Amino acid sequence: MAHFPGMERRATFAIGLLHYPVYNRRGEICTTAVVNADIHDLARLARTYGALKYYLVTPLPAQEELVGKLVGHWTKGYGARFNPSRAEALSLVKVLPSLEACREDMKGLTGKEPKVCVSGANFSEELTSHEELRELMKREDASFLIVFGTGWGLAEEVVKKADYRLAPIKGLNGYNHLSVRCAAAIILDRLLA
Amino acid sequence: MAHFPGMERRATFAIGLLHYPVYNRRGEICTTAVVNADIHDLARLARTYGALKYYLVTPLPAQEELVGKLVGHWTKGYGARFNPSRAEALSLVKVLPSLEACREDMKGLTGKEPKVCVSGANFSEELTSHEELRELMKREDASFLIVFGTGWGLAEEVVKKADYRLAPIKGLNGYNHLSVRCAAAIILDRLLA
Repeated sequence: MAHFPGMERRATFAIGLLHYPVYNRRGEICTTAVVNADIHDLARLARTYGALKYYLVTPLPAQEELVGKLVGHWTKGYGARFNPSRAEALSLVKVLPSLEACREDMKGLTGKEPKVCVSGANFSEELTSHEELRELMKREDASFLIVFGTGWGLAEEVVKKADYRLAPIKGLNGYNHLSVRCAAAIILDRLLA
Repeated sequence: MAHFPGMERRATFAIGLLHYPVYNRRGEICTTAVVNADIHDLARLARTYGALKYYLVTPLPAQEELVGKLVGHWTKGYGARFNPSRAEALSLVKVLPSLEACREDMKGLTGKEPKVCVSGANFSEELTSHEELRELMKREDASFLIVFGTGWGLAEEVVKKADYRLAPIKGLNGYNHLSVRCAAAIILDRLLA
């Protein structure tokens, strides 16, 4: 199997999925509901590419409780015995109320302030390409928090404050309507594989 | 935007998601249920990377009927007006009862027999790397049907008959437990972006 080795490079990064503040389809700031497939798919991605944490960002205590129950099922007791590789992935999930809290948490884990890199299908200005970010993440002192949005995308206040805006994934004839699950998969693979 | 152009290369390929014959967790041949997130995510991927078709393979008439209703909602009437880009993606979906029927359908569309390339997290022998398949797909006469499994993976009878077996995506320390949605995203991006 030497011809197809597993990944060996370990970058210091975490991913975050923001449920607030994001836009709804009318362009208003809203809080989206947590989606079960997003919890599982992004946790498995986080584990595959070696993320320190997968932050699920929601300010709603009821949603935090729900995620706690779902994650608990797979990381403790029957679910963990049924599927140990799923437990390994879901143990990376941490629910926090804000992006600021994620930065603080990551700082606590790594001892340094992470650079925040946001992603979005509609970004058009001041973009960082996947290749550029890939190079930045190779530096020894690199620590990155890569942020994905939900709903109709991250609120401008989040995008403005970020250190980097990742160039969107453009498909054939400019089609750019991937699910966040698929977009996150492609982005992590381009940055880290 | 010249620095981040959309995809321009158009390869001749389709994707197929097999719900039969696949394994269940006890290694028995079974038929899995169609999953709504798979329909949407893979349709959006198919549209992003320019697939001719997204074949949903199930031999169960009740599942075919269900998919027809779901896809109909998004491609006709209210759903199509609500989200035209989703209609564009879901119009690529075609439900067929077998992989053989997909080959025939593709032959009808392109006038030539497609090469069948299967994917699976546990493949270990006679592998084709993503780079090798990428090169093969660049040929002018290339026509490929890229097949993804559900459940605990494609049945051996399907794998044995395929023209190519794609090397699995290996994560850090060999972790290879991605969802089919994320695996398909990464594979299409490696082959076509």
